[in-house]
Amino acid sequence: MSESLAARAAALDAADELAGLRKLFALDDTVYLDGNSLGALPAHVPGRVADVVNRQWGELRIRSWDESGWWTAPERIGDRIAPLIGAAPGQVVVGDSTSVNVFKAVVGAVRLNADESRTDIVVDATTFPTDGYIAESAARMTGRRLVPVAPADLPSALGPQTAVALVNHVDYRTGRLHDLPSLTAAIHEAGALAVWDLCHSAGALPVGVDGHGVDLAVGCTYKYLNGGPGSPAYLYVAERHQQAFDSPLPGWNSHVDPFAMTGGFAAADGAIRGRVGTPDILSMLALEAALDVWDGVSVDSVRAKSLALTDFFLECVEAYVPRGSVTSLTPAEHAERGSQVALRCADAPAVMEKLIKQGVVGDLRRPDVLRFGFTPLYVGFADAERAAAVLAAVLAPDTA
Amino acid sequence: MSESLAARAAALDAADELAGLRKLFALDDTVYLDGNSLGALPAHVPGRVADVVNRQWGELRIRSWDESGWWTAPERIGDRIAPLIGAAPGQVVVGDSTSVNVFKAVVGAVRLNADESRTDIVVDATTFPTDGYIAESAARMTGRRLVPVAPADLPSALGPQTAVALVNHVDYRTGRLHDLPSLTAAIHEAGALAVWDLCHSAGALPVGVDGHGVDLAVGCTYKYLNGGPGSPAYLYVAERHQQAFDSPLPGWNSHVDPFAMTGGFAAADGAIRGRVGTPDILSMLALEAALDVWDGVSVDSVRAKSLALTDFFLECVEAYVPRGSVTSLTPAEHAERGSQVALRCADAPAVMEKLIKQGVVGDLRRPDVLRFGFTPLYVGFADAERAAAVLAAVLAPDTA
Repeated sequence: MSESLAARAAALDAADELAGLRKLFALDDTVYLDGNSLGALPAHVPGRVADVVNRQWGELRIRSWDESGWWTAPERIGDRIAPLIGAAPGQVVVGDSTSVNVFKAVVGAVRLNADESRTDIVVDATTFPTDGYIAESAARMTGRRLVPVAPADLPSALGPQTAVALVNHVDYRTGRLHDLPSLTAAIHEAGALAVWDLCHSAGALPVGVDGHGVDLAVGCTYKYLNGGPGSPAYLYVAERHQQAFDSPLPGWNSHVDPFAMTGGFAAADGAIRGRVGTPDILSMLALEAALDVWDGVSVDSVRAKSLALTDFFLECVEAYVPRGSVTSLTPAEHAERGSQVALRCADAPAVMEKLIKQGVVGDLRRPDVLRFGFTPLYVGFADAERAAAVLAAVLAPDTA
Repeated sequence: MSESLAARAAALDAADELAGLRKLFALDDTVYLDGNSLGALPAHVPGRVADVVNRQWGELRIRSWDESGWWTAPERIGDRIAPLIGAAPGQVVVGDSTSVNVFKAVVGAVRLNADESRTDIVVDATTFPTDGYIAESAARMTGRRLVPVAPADLPSALGPQTAVALVNHVDYRTGRLHDLPSLTAAIHEAGALAVWDLCHSAGALPVGVDGHGVDLAVGCTYKYLNGGPGSPAYLYVAERHQQAFDSPLPGWNSHVDPFAMTGGFAAADGAIRGRVGTPDILSMLALEAALDVWDGVSVDSVRAKSLALTDFFLECVEAYVPRGSVTSLTPAEHAERGSQVALRCADAPAVMEKLIKQGVVGDLRRPDVLRFGFTPLYVGFADAERAAAVLAAVLAPDTA
């Protein structure tokens, strides 16, 4: 059985039209299944960062705000991310952390739907915690009520009292993919606005924010977009909402004429309205460079490979790992699966530690979840097979 | 006259105990007087950034959150900045832009002084605009009123209606230094909280936040602290306020146990409570490296040199520049002067363009202000003399 899965892995890798992308990344022989937490380093990024530091900062200094395009980086890089989430240009701006963008998006959405009888901000009860914490603050500061609801229960929880719903596209813990088109339609049906968190989907599967009528969205860039540790997040504001979008963080970068330095605030048009303060250029331009690996890559191919990879990994786990020692939390249905596999497992912290020591890097979600992210740009089928084999060895009853 | 000022410059440089620091920076023969906008590159920073990118991100990847100290960087770097502003450890945290930190500080201060009869947030009417825009948003979201007041009028404008006053330590346009000790005392006398913006003073002169009883403060790190373009800002929350500090941006990084990933928010103790989302590591660790140039440097010596430099520059301008062609907006009194000289001048945009072409880099504040920043770590007296000489040549009536 082992030989046959290894042989199948080799054949799948040989037939993989994306396999050539792996050489664009600085990777060793580690099986890196944590790209859903921190994407790997694209090999050309160090040279670009060195140029930003040495020439743009060190030699041109202040002139780089114009000459090196620093000032316009947030919207320029936003337009690089836009096609990856199905957005036309002019609707995405990069900057700040995901948490700060959740605040902008939720407060902004409440203000776009300001009917006082709409008292509720509904938040995904299974969300990555920061969205819930920030949405709670947004509710408190806009005089609304926070209502946590599991995504499955969302349609029945929505109603004329709902102002805004904030939902995660993919559950960070289980890898479950929520049905963005139908949930967005249900949110609109209730007269509410849909704010989506794309942290665990952008770069792994098609999102289609424009096509499905999403109102606002946020996402990080350090997972499947490989922007580097803590690289800036992004905010999507659908064009139809931009003129009325009223940011709670109207910093000088979102002013219509920032260098006039006038006392009265007047918001810029377009996605720029989502900017706040001076952009963190080193992190931002590392991200810009990292996005080059997407040139010519179709998100549909990425999605197809992602599903094939997670299918194959689950098959290998089923074949290799002692029965009953792990339980998959990740839906078997493709339509419900993101680009990760989450396995519940006794003694998970010690198991993950052993996996990492043996060159298979996933991560842990306390108390008992092993999380394996599959980044189709640089993870192959042989990686999936090896990860399952090492996991099986770690979990074998005779292992010390 | 010219020869004697040039000779004096040489003597002053020879006697300057900080002169040796210039070699720590990547500088050419440009006279760089824009360090109050973007500090010069410390020469060792590119190597450190390359290590962060290649080894920490590229090789260790996710392990660097622990092994390379990424997770604790915001408070660790905060403690490096603390002595530069006169703060004991544990009160400064780095992250986000200045604008975002102004929001945390002003909303936080209102919540610390939550008596509803205190209806007013007073903001420096001469502030760098973003502080005013953000304070306006903070006022709107906390049900307070924004009252712009010039710093000189502050004492008479304060009263039982004042909740918070947000003041700039140094005026970004004129270089005027406001009297932080006496204004803080007046704000406290009125029963209000003092929030200071230190963008144009930290790293140029002693601040003494602890000693003068400042309540909260914010500052950027890319001016006199040389952290690089858009490097993260910092937030100071005095220890006595930390237990009650209630951030409007309670992201997961400010949770007491972020990796428990629980739905309920419980704030961490100490300065960490000012964190929000995942820190932008590349920009943050470039800043950390840049702070090394301060090792063993006393802020008092920096201040003494700064005043000597701006005195000498004004003297050279007086001697060289055609009478009546420029007017200094910068106070002659040392107690009222920051570390820059602002000259009002006809046709200022064209003049600054010519200066830059001739290797003297200052900047422009529209419509008619030439701004020259003096960074004592790397600007010398010969630079000041040359800048005045080039300015004189540009302004000479016979210049084309």
